[in-house]
This record gives sequence, C-alpha cells and structure tokens, in this order.
Amino acid sequence: MKLESLISEIHKKKSFLCIGLDVDLNKIPAHLLDTDDPIFQFNKAIINATHHLAVAYKPNIAFYEAYGLKGWKSLEKTIGYLNEHHPEIFTIADAKRGDIGNTSAMYANAFLKEMNFDSITVAPYMGKDSVEPFLAVEGKHTILLGLTSNEGAFDFQTKKIGDSELYKEVLLTSRGWKHSDRLMYVVGATKAEYLADIRKIIPESFLLIPGVGAQGGSLSEVCKYGMTENIGLLVNSSRGILYASKGKDFADAAAEAATVLQLEMKKLMQKK
Amino acid sequence: MKLESLISEIHKKKSFLCIGLDVDLNKIPAHLLDTDDPIFQFNKAIINATHHLAVAYKPNIAFYEAYGLKGWKSLEKTIGYLNEHHPEIFTIADAKRGDIGNTSAMYANAFLKEMNFDSITVAPYMGKDSVEPFLAVEGKHTILLGLTSNEGAFDFQTKKIGDSELYKEVLLTSRGWKHSDRLMYVVGATKAEYLADIRKIIPESFLLIPGVGAQGGSLSEVCKYGMTENIGLLVNSSRGILYASKGKDFADAAAEAATVLQLEMKKLMQKK
Repeated sequence: MKLESLISEIHKKKSFLCIGLDVDLNKIPAHLLDTDDPIFQFNKAIINATHHLAVAYKPNIAFYEAYGLKGWKSLEKTIGYLNEHHPEIFTIADAKRGDIGNTSAMYANAFLKEMNFDSITVAPYMGKDSVEPFLAVEGKHTILLGLTSNEGAFDFQTKKIGDSELYKEVLLTSRGWKHSDRLMYVVGATKAEYLADIRKIIPESFLLIPGVGAQGGSLSEVCKYGMTENIGLLVNSSRGILYASKGKDFADAAAEAATVLQLEMKKLMQKK
Repeated sequence: MKLESLISEIHKKKSFLCIGLDVDLNKIPAHLLDTDDPIFQFNKAIINATHHLAVAYKPNIAFYEAYGLKGWKSLEKTIGYLNEHHPEIFTIADAKRGDIGNTSAMYANAFLKEMNFDSITVAPYMGKDSVEPFLAVEGKHTILLGLTSNEGAFDFQTKKIGDSELYKEVLLTSRGWKHSDRLMYVVGATKAEYLADIRKIIPESFLLIPGVGAQGGSLSEVCKYGMTENIGLLVNSSRGILYASKGKDFADAAAEAATVLQLEMKKLMQKK
C-alpha cells in the first residue's frame, strides 16, 4: 500500500487507530472454542465489527506461533481475509525480525510477499544489511524498533552514545539506508515527552505507537508531540478492544471500545 | 538439556560443531523435490549422515517461515526427529526473537516448550524484560546476540558507550539478569580478535560462533581467543556442509565436509 492511501484512509475515517490482533485463547469467549478455528473466527468478528473505525490491523506473530501449525493457519486466514475484504486497511506483521542479509530476505519474502502484509516490524540491532532486505520490497513498509514501551527500553536504547542516545542513533543512521522512505518507526507511548526529540530527527515519518491503554500512555500527549501535517501516527490498542467483553457480545463491545478511541482521535485531528 | 550433557558430548565426539539446517529448496538435490516433504527429507539425510560429528543442530527459522504452513510442518518434523533419535544433541532455534514480556513468553513457549528446542537465539535491543521470559524456562538456554558476523554489526553494536561499546554493555548487563546462568551468546567469528575482550566479560559462557566458512573466519583464531576449560564454543557451519554436493551423494559429501571440520576441532581441543 502506498503511504498516500494510508493517509487518505486516516482522513476519511478520522482515525489513526491500529488494532492489535493478539489473540489469546484463554481470553476469548468460550463459545468460540468449539469452532474449527477459534482464533480466525475471533479475528473475523473483530474485523467485521471495527473495520470502519480502524486504519490498520497488527497481528503480533508470537500469538500465532505459540499455537504452531494451527496458529500459522489462523494467521494466513486472517491476513487473507483482510486482503480480500479490506484492501484499503494497512496491515502490520508485528514480527520484530532481523537477521543477516539473505536470511532477512527470507523473512521479507514470507511476510511481505507470500502473506502480502503491507508492513513488518524489524529490530535494528544487526544494522543496515539486516534491514535493507525488508526495505527492498516495493510498495511495502518496514517499521523499525526505535524506542519501545517496555521497561527494558532503558537497558540499551537510552544509553548515551556521545551526545546522543542509542535509539536516536538508530533513527538517524537508518535515514541513510537505501529506500529509507519506506521506513516507519515503533515509538512507545509511555514516553510521550521523548516524541519532541524524535520529531527533530524524523519529522515526517509515520510512528507506530504501542502502549496506549494496557501499557499506559496518553493519546493527547502523543498527538501534542508526535502529530504531523499528514498525522504521521498509528496508535495501537489490543487488549482494551479485543477483550472489552468476554461474552457473546464481544464484537459489539470491541466496536464500542474502538469508537471511544476513534472519537478521541477525531477530536485531536480537528485541533491540528 | 543440561550444560554438563553438552560438555560431555563435546568431549566424547571431540567436536564442537553445530550444523545450521538452513534449507533452501533452490539448492538441494533435484531428486528430493519429488518427495512429500523435501525439506524434512533433506534434513533427515543430513542428520543421519552427520550426527556422530556434530554436537548441535541449528535450524534458522526464517528458512522455514519462508515456506509458510509447509515450512512449519518441516520444522516440527525436523525437531521431532532430533528429539526422538538424538536427544543427546543440543538443538538451537535460530529465531532471533525478542518482544515485550508477555509476548516473549509466547515465543519461549512455542520454541522451548511446544517444539522442545534446547535453546533459542534472542535479540537484546528491548532489554531485560524481553529476554527474561526465555531465561525463565528451566533446563533450556537463551543465546543472546552479542556481536554478529555481518557488516551491519558496526552500525550499532560497536558504537562507543562511555569507555565501553554497545555489544560489551549487552554482555555485561545481561549477566545481572535472572537465571543468567542459562545464557549463551552469539559472537561472529569474522572478528576473532574481539574474543579476547569478550572473554574478559564472560569468561565461562558458551559462545555460538556463526561465520566459519561461507561468512569467513578462522577456526584456529576462534579457539585461540575463545576456548575455555569446558571448550565453551559451538562453531556453526551451514552451507559448506549442506551443499557440499548437489548430487545424490549430498549426504556423504556433507559427512565428509563435517569430518574435515571435526578433525580440525579435535586437533585444536588436544592443543588445549
């Protein structure tokens, strides 16, 4: 998907909501467990109920690999369903991959070509030649981990490198990589105050913001420091939407929870 | 597998060879492509021909994910075959995963429990709480990326942090994590001279050394700087063994290539 299509979708829906499809069989309504593919049935119901409110869906691949072969089948069916019924919605394989060049190329092939995700999250530790194979895929986007939302972010990401910090070095260095116009970045919302600094280094890039909701973080703070002319934000919510109800009304409850966020986003977009 | 079992296997076989099961369908003998599961058939033949020479096998997960559902089936069959027929051999899921805590726990579950690998490679960028869920699994090992063998290693890993460098900070910091006795480290053999420094920080830990062979790097240099009383090394070779021949004799050729390495290792162990 081209960036312009994502931006136009954001304006059309007045939303920059990304819904994390992180399905945990221990948390979904009991009646779905009797179906042939509970994970896919759950996702399909969530997508059907929220696709007018969200501009992106983000399955975290761990939640599918945890169920082995069955999980992969659910993942393939989920991305297949999105590509068939909602090609206008941006899809993110939250995989956090990264390996030596030819190996990264195989991951890029699996997620961006075979499964046809619009984007994939990638870890930066192994540097340029581990990321460029993802960037090489035309019409796709690579979402590089910048500053994550977990406690461990302070172990290495915020370590001083000269006058800078590691995560800033990652942002800065990655701008020089081939096809860097296809880069987006993961930035944790628990550190909204960092966003002003980040915008100095990558003023235009789209940021994927996890950690609004269950992981903490305020939407208005994120917008204050991170929003650009093109909005430039995808704010993710997973558990707060997926598990708004554990009953048979789970999809309606998810839509309600998503609506609350979308309406807040609409207001914040109008302020801009 | 307990560390003592690995060490005793190393002494018994006079080998610290790890064989990377990175199967590329474009490179395996043509006659296997007609079988029901070419990847598994190839792996099985390689394992049958080399299990007396190798102390570890390491499938790189990208090579399996690249083939989607079929690839996962091949991976499950391969690790199943190893666990059934060669439980004495150390198995490594080369996955380079790493995510926020509960998500890392799902990866740990998939690879270390469900598939029952002895270990998994993990990326350090997200810090302590992204790695500890792997370390929490009893009887298993977490192999943390330290200094990788690719060019991109110089983008961030060798960046100066005060008087130290990022990869050294990773080694040092990780020693303080819970169950750090279950840690091993990936260290690229293309930089054998770094090993002396690395051994000052982690004198006893096992190192997984990729990059002998196709990626360059000398075995004797690695041993000179990296070998400990308990050997403390797993040296990986993939392509040089797997694709020693493209004909029907591929398994014999693989055994020959592995024997050359094993004999060199035997000599280097005797020197110690």
